[in-house]
This record gives sequence, structure tokens and C-alpha cells, in this order.
Amino acid sequence: MDTDAFIERALERAVCAADRGAAPPKLIAAIRHALFPGGARVRPQLCLAVAHACGARTDDDFQPAVAAAAAVELLHCASLIHDDLPCFDAAELRRGKPSVHVAYGEALAVLAGDAMIVMAFETLSRDCAAPSRLGALTAIIAGAVGPPFGIVAGQAWESEPEIELSRYHRSKTGAMFVAAATAGAAAMGADKTPWRAMGDRLGEAYQIADDIRDFVMEENALGKPAGQDAANARPNAVDTLGLRGAFDQLNELIRDAADSVPDCAGADNLRELVYAQARRLAPKDLIRSLA
Amino acid sequence: MDTDAFIERALERAVCAADRGAAPPKLIAAIRHALFPGGARVRPQLCLAVAHACGARTDDDFQPAVAAAAAVELLHCASLIHDDLPCFDAAELRRGKPSVHVAYGEALAVLAGDAMIVMAFETLSRDCAAPSRLGALTAIIAGAVGPPFGIVAGQAWESEPEIELSRYHRSKTGAMFVAAATAGAAAMGADKTPWRAMGDRLGEAYQIADDIRDFVMEENALGKPAGQDAANARPNAVDTLGLRGAFDQLNELIRDAADSVPDCAGADNLRELVYAQARRLAPKDLIRSLA
Repeated sequence: MDTDAFIERALERAVCAADRGAAPPKLIAAIRHALFPGGARVRPQLCLAVAHACGARTDDDFQPAVAAAAAVELLHCASLIHDDLPCFDAAELRRGKPSVHVAYGEALAVLAGDAMIVMAFETLSRDCAAPSRLGALTAIIAGAVGPPFGIVAGQAWESEPEIELSRYHRSKTGAMFVAAATAGAAAMGADKTPWRAMGDRLGEAYQIADDIRDFVMEENALGKPAGQDAANARPNAVDTLGLRGAFDQLNELIRDAADSVPDCAGADNLRELVYAQARRLAPKDLIRSLA
Repeated sequence: MDTDAFIERALERAVCAADRGAAPPKLIAAIRHALFPGGARVRPQLCLAVAHACGARTDDDFQPAVAAAAAVELLHCASLIHDDLPCFDAAELRRGKPSVHVAYGEALAVLAGDAMIVMAFETLSRDCAAPSRLGALTAIIAGAVGPPFGIVAGQAWESEPEIELSRYHRSKTGAMFVAAATAGAAAMGADKTPWRAMGDRLGEAYQIADDIRDFVMEENALGKPAGQDAANARPNAVDTLGLRGAFDQLNELIRDAADSVPDCAGADNLRELVYAQARRLAPKDLIRSLA
């Protein structure tokens, strides 16, 4: 089972369905720019790993989870486009390339993000192959993006006079990890409840790792502008906890995430995935400097 | 059966579900600003009128169509917010009020639009009450917004060097009228095909009426800046056909729309709705000046 290929093929199908040789060419180019080549596809991989842990083995078994995984990645990439806009982070670099509004202009960046939100729900309903699970999957995934607890709410907290760090991180990053994990279970018709805790810890870990990287790494290694949180007076775990404190909390969250994998056939696999993610997340330079 | 109340209650439910006392207050305020008080709710009314024509009589009968109608209106209002942004029309006025980015800033305007796209699909899946119809309704409504033929594609054509007027209008306005009409049928489990033509004509009529109003009316009467198409070098039917030509085409499209109502129990009602819309659309000053 090649989950990388599942994800890339599902995203490619989504773009082809959005194009059909009839869409405005620059819009499709902007969408492709945002989607390919991807980052580590952490969220869709998590979704498929949970589906595997819940018993998916064949291509057919995986199909509803693949639809959910593609929707999650489309929404994640859409949020990055809008988050990079001049009225938010004004970031000119993303994954080592010009961000979408730099490459295609602000109007097409807004529209590409909008299109990808719509494509996410379209992909889910088209590829789900399990109509009885579509309502639950839509609710899980919409909840991770919309208010009150999703990414959009997280970004909107930045416009409020007071902002609570853990609530902010849970919305801006954690919600999508929780959705990816619980959607993997719901796609298999399994109970999603036991998977919340793992998604939650992993999302928090990912956000803290991102804060650490924003603080310590250079733009070249990061593939996007460094020091953005300080530049935008954005809450950052390193501010609150110090560098050593943030690193300790990252380690604790990774352990918690691995510990909260429910008992199931694929549990060991999934714990290994969590630790593999952790090694990828922790900036090597930092580990050396703290050693 | 009070379709106005159905629509307002469904939109209110959607906002309450997005808030739950836990969302960033300014985001919810921006969403309310965009949704209430509404315009004529033309698209959701069309959806419910078709559901009625397809046999809906009780509240329960109407429920899937009400969910679809609310989704359509959320998406329409989201598109207006993004269309008013400085990188598109830079419109400072909408329905006689400051547009969302003027009242709440650009960041919250982008986020409110994003949130409302998500809320549309969430509302549809939560309120649909007919799980077997959810996939078809999601496909219809997503198709009216996303590429290649939906609103977002229509707006994106504005960034292309060449733009075909009828394709542009079909995407930017027509697609949502077609979706509203066909979703009204699909929500009742009826064949959506016979309703495409009516939605299509009505959408085109609405766009031409909008072009005429943009050309001839004053800002105060319009509730939004006048002369925007000329100011933005946007394709406009008055440019292409002349004022008299545009008015003739509007009349022809309204007749076509009424003629294309399929034979059904509610056909007379629906034809009457089409003519009532036409009377509302045609600017009285213009009718006088052409008389």
C-alpha cells in the first residue's frame, strides 16, 4: 500500500476535475503552484495511517479515507495561500518558492484559496464511495476549518485584542490534525472518539515545532520567511516558554501523542509514524545547540 | 408556508452553529454584517420555489431544500465579500452599508468569506435530513462555486487576457441560479435536468439587469458604487449591446425563463415568481426613459 501515491493521485484528480480544459488557465496554475510539489503531506498521511490502523488494507477499503485525506490537504494548502496574503503575514516565500500572491497576484491568490476550499468538499463527496459516511466526514472536516474551532477562527483570533495561546494553536493547527485522525477512523465506519487525543497532541507538537523553527532557523533552510511571529507580533511558544521550555514541551507532546494511540492492530505502526514525524519536526541545528 | 422565514431561520442557525459563544467575536460580527439584513434572497427563494413545484408542502418536505437554499445564500454572500476586496472591485459600499473589508478590515473580510464557504457545506450536511441526497446536493452546489464553471472561475476570468462575455456571465452569475433551481429539485429527489434551462435564463437575465443598473443608476439607489464595470474595465452587456439592446435581451431572457418552467403542479406559481423577479430587476427610471 503506497499512501504517498494515493494522496498525490487524489489531489491530481481533484485538480483535473476543477480544470476539465475549461477553467481559467491562471487559476489552475495558481492551484497547482500551491499543491505541487507538496510538503510532507503530514495531515493526509495521518488520516491514512489511522484508516490503516482501523483495518483498511485494499484500495477499496482506503477510498473514503483517501477522499478525506485529499480534502484535508486541499484545505490546509488553501489556508496557507490566504495566510501568506499581504493583509495577514505578507510572506513572499513558501516551501522555497514565491508564495501564490507573489507569483500570480493577490486576486488569483484569494480565488485559488476559495476554489480549493470548495474543491475539498467536492472531492470528499465525489470520491467518498460510502454515502452513509459522507455527512459525518463533512462535519469533521468542516469543523476543522470553519468557526468556532477551526483554522479560520484561529486566524481570526489574531484580530482580537486578547488571545489565549493554547486556544489559538488548537484552532490554527490542532483542529486539522484532530480532523485528519478522526476522519481516518470515521472513513472506516469506526468510532472516532479514541483518536481525538492523538490528533490533538500531534497538532500541538507540530505548532510548537513550527514556533521553534520560526525562531531559530534561517529563511533558506525553512523555505519561508523566518522570524515571522516576532515580525507580526504573533503569539509564539518560544516567547512564552523560552527555547528550552518549548523544546521540552515538544518532546512531552510527542510522547503523549504516541501514548494516546488506542489499542488496535496497527498501533505499533502508528506510534512509529508519530516518532518519525517527531524526528522530521525537530530542527537538527537546534538539537545540536541544546545538546 | 413562509419561505422568507425558512431562509432567515436557516441562516441564523448556521451563524449560531459557527459561534456557539466560542468564536472570535469580530469574525462572527463580520459574517452577520455580510448576511443580515439580506437582499431579496433571490437564489434561495428560487430553490424553495422549485422544491414547492416538485411537491414540497410541509416543513419536513422542505427541509433538504432549505438546507440547500441556506448553503446557496452563504456562498453568494461570501462571493460578494471577496469580490468587494481592494484586489478585486475595491467597492466600499454594499446594500447601502460599508462593505465588510471597510467595516472590519481586509483580514477579517477574507476570513469571513472563507468561513462562509465552509459553513455552506457544513449547513448542507447538517440540515439536509436526507443523507442519500447529500452527495448530489454537494456536487450541484460546489459546481456553482468552484472551477471550471462556478463563481470563482467567473471572477478568475477577469485575470485572463481574453474573456468571452457569455462564459464569464454564466460562471459569475448564471451558475448559482442554475444550482439554486436544480438543487431545489434534487432536494426533493426529483430529476434536476428539466430545471437547468430556467435557472440558466434567469441567471443571465439577472446579470444583464445588473449591468444595466450599474450603467444607469446612481450610487444611492443602487446601495453600492455605480459605474464599477466601466471603472474596472469589466465586460458589461451595455457596452456590447447598447442600452436598448441590453434591455431587449433582458426581456427576451425573462420570457424564455418563464417558458422553460417544466410542466408540473406548481408551474403557474413559478412563472409568476419569474415575472415578479423581472419587475424587481428592471430599474423603473430606465423603463421610463426608454418608454
